[in-house]
Amino acid sequence: MKNLNTRPPTGTRDFLPRQVKKREELLSVVKNVFESFGFAPIETPAFERIDTLMGKYGQEGEKLIFKILKRGEQADDKEADLALRYDLTIPLARFMAEYQAKLPKIFRGYQIGSVWRAEKPGRGRLREFYQADIDIVGSSSLTADAEIILALSKTLAKLGISNLGICLNSKKILEGLSEMYKVLPQLNQDFLISLDKLDKVGVQGVEQELVSRGLPSAVVKEVVDDLQQPTEVITAKIEKTSIGRVGLREVEEITKLVEPLLPTGSRLKVSPFLARGLDYYTGLIFEIYVDQFGSAVAGGGRYDNLVGLFTNKLTPACGGSLGIERILLLREQEEGEKESAPAEVLVTVWEINSQTDALRLANKLRDRGIRTDIYLATDKIGKQLRYAADCGIRYCLLLGPDEKAKGEVAIKDLETGSQMSVLEEELTDKLLNLIQKR
Amino acid sequence: MKNLNTRPPTGTRDFLPRQVKKREELLSVVKNVFESFGFAPIETPAFERIDTLMGKYGQEGEKLIFKILKRGEQADDKEADLALRYDLTIPLARFMAEYQAKLPKIFRGYQIGSVWRAEKPGRGRLREFYQADIDIVGSSSLTADAEIILALSKTLAKLGISNLGICLNSKKILEGLSEMYKVLPQLNQDFLISLDKLDKVGVQGVEQELVSRGLPSAVVKEVVDDLQQPTEVITAKIEKTSIGRVGLREVEEITKLVEPLLPTGSRLKVSPFLARGLDYYTGLIFEIYVDQFGSAVAGGGRYDNLVGLFTNKLTPACGGSLGIERILLLREQEEGEKESAPAEVLVTVWEINSQTDALRLANKLRDRGIRTDIYLATDKIGKQLRYAADCGIRYCLLLGPDEKAKGEVAIKDLETGSQMSVLEEELTDKLLNLIQKR
Repeated sequence: MKNLNTRPPTGTRDFLPRQVKKREELLSVVKNVFESFGFAPIETPAFERIDTLMGKYGQEGEKLIFKILKRGEQADDKEADLALRYDLTIPLARFMAEYQAKLPKIFRGYQIGSVWRAEKPGRGRLREFYQADIDIVGSSSLTADAEIILALSKTLAKLGISNLGICLNSKKILEGLSEMYKVLPQLNQDFLISLDKLDKVGVQGVEQELVSRGLPSAVVKEVVDDLQQPTEVITAKIEKTSIGRVGLREVEEITKLVEPLLPTGSRLKVSPFLARGLDYYTGLIFEIYVDQFGSAVAGGGRYDNLVGLFTNKLTPACGGSLGIERILLLREQEEGEKESAPAEVLVTVWEINSQTDALRLANKLRDRGIRTDIYLATDKIGKQLRYAADCGIRYCLLLGPDEKAKGEVAIKDLETGSQMSVLEEELTDKLLNLIQKR
Repeated sequence: MKNLNTRPPTGTRDFLPRQVKKREELLSVVKNVFESFGFAPIETPAFERIDTLMGKYGQEGEKLIFKILKRGEQADDKEADLALRYDLTIPLARFMAEYQAKLPKIFRGYQIGSVWRAEKPGRGRLREFYQADIDIVGSSSLTADAEIILALSKTLAKLGISNLGICLNSKKILEGLSEMYKVLPQLNQDFLISLDKLDKVGVQGVEQELVSRGLPSAVVKEVVDDLQQPTEVITAKIEKTSIGRVGLREVEEITKLVEPLLPTGSRLKVSPFLARGLDYYTGLIFEIYVDQFGSAVAGGGRYDNLVGLFTNKLTPACGGSLGIERILLLREQEEGEKESAPAEVLVTVWEINSQTDALRLANKLRDRGIRTDIYLATDKIGKQLRYAADCGIRYCLLLGPDEKAKGEVAIKDLETGSQMSVLEEELTDKLLNLIQKR
């Protein structure tokens, strides 16, 4: 029989114990900072109804949604009725529409969980990755936008990631650009999708994209020229459009609020060409970059119309999300390291009839929080000690006939090679002492 | 426009902040007990290749797998190539096959995460639920089976769930039954599927199931009679088959190892008709019941051939899993309670120009771990205090012109109504004191 493939599916990863522990440590820092800003945790399902997700992510995003087949009697239809969540924002909007009455009028929520996108394999792009989202729902104040940026920057700083480059823009500035370049309404979407690719494909790539999407060559030329101008030149042009002017004032106000509290070494700048791919933004948008990465480690914006899609009632909201995987990559362990079991003590088994005694001893230790493994066979003691050494377990307990007769247990320290006998009733205290001493 | 449905998809749930916190507390207890037994955390993706999952769960289980459509250029095929994981055991087997060389020869692993099963809606059955699995891979010792049962029982006890009923059986005892009733090999699967439904449909239901699956009426009569006999009568009959005898000795040995260490009030019993639905078990199987539930809160068994499906090399293994959702139901909060924000302090905003000061104050408090909300508008102070009261926030900070001139901040305690002013540099210490005093 042909062996089954043992690799995780394309674009997904398995986590070995040390990696799980590292991510848990990271997430615990993230949660602490989020909660210090008054955000409360929520959780939504891994999949949503397909019509909840469709029409929200732009034509490029929509193609990447994982769809789930109908089941049971409808399995033969080969139609999809559910889809894995593509981000945590649309699920939050549905959640808010459903539970608004149970929540404070201005709700600060966070969700940490996996999202799924069928990105092309390779290029380090994952198809399953963790996001940590924060959102403030029910406030149209720019202070809310500022709080989102401050919370994400502080989280990164607490994770030891400083020198942040924070790029600010506004949907209103992007509208100003469209007005400035006289982009036809039917090509506006294509114009924004092309700009969105700037950090991945560069100026030349954007040029190709604009051409292939049918923007007039005069427009393409002007955009490409401007992409190479200093920001001040562009903002001066944007000032001349009324909508763009409103956007620039927004960005200035945010800058005033955020700048004094940024982690040391971080810079805030206006990026008038920053166009996040998602369709649902309505106001301020931002991305946070770190020197080590070409792409953003965090981003977000204001989406005042999203909750209203579910309720027909305007509910202002803004939020942002942290790419946990990219942060983890910065801290990834070296490949090839041997994983070790997390036990601190191994109870060896002297002979087949000592198993009950060994389990009883292990139970005592575990009750006191000592991480305890027990040898699962009756091999020679030498072999049992080698197993402990392989696992990185330092202390082994030996319960031979001599010890048993005296009500004692021998503790062997594999690091020093020394061995001592203690009364069984003093064993756990002794071990707790030894372990804490390290 | 028709509003979108705001309920989570059938069989799934949203979690409000208090529910997330409750589950996190529960999972932290689970992790601590698992780690005290030397288990190390692993994590696998939400979906697997479809051929990894098919043929492992029996014909009944297989129908409940959520399948994911191919994407991109292959989307039009309407074929599935991936599927959401149905349990955590098959993913563990694939994981072990892939990483065995990096892990200790006997590996104790745990995984906590969602699994998905397209169960019929209603009857309180969920389609997305958390499982907490532990597994010992690489040992054929019955002590390993005993360790799994001990770890799960102790976890339940630490969660305050006692009076456990632990039902033990063995695939070998089930083989003994088949021999005893002379069930034809081609009907053996149907025989076991029928028995597996006993706790859900009762003796009559099993009878109907056996008849509809084509078992001879003489067999059906004998089985139905025996289902109503005391266990001793059945085990005496099983003793007469050679394979059943081996199974009974196994179960006795496990009982001897486990019984002395069970939580008070718990009972262990042999259940010769217990047939867990999953195909992959090869030795001991068990289920753990709690008085409040008709169905099991935990279960597991030995599956010596599962890792070998991926490697063609025999790797003995056993494991068990805890149904987190059922345990949570035991502790579920009353519906209709108002959710409150987790902040401890609200920084109010005196007037529009105080926003920067308010953010600066909030930043100081957050740096010291005080969960701090900031009012996101410039409403009258009375309205800001009402917002705090609604959210369940006790302390409000006021920074009016008088306070500002003196370098002070006023702390209003909404519970007592009292107000005091403190120097800004003493503010965080004062608040930490107040909060810890509660």
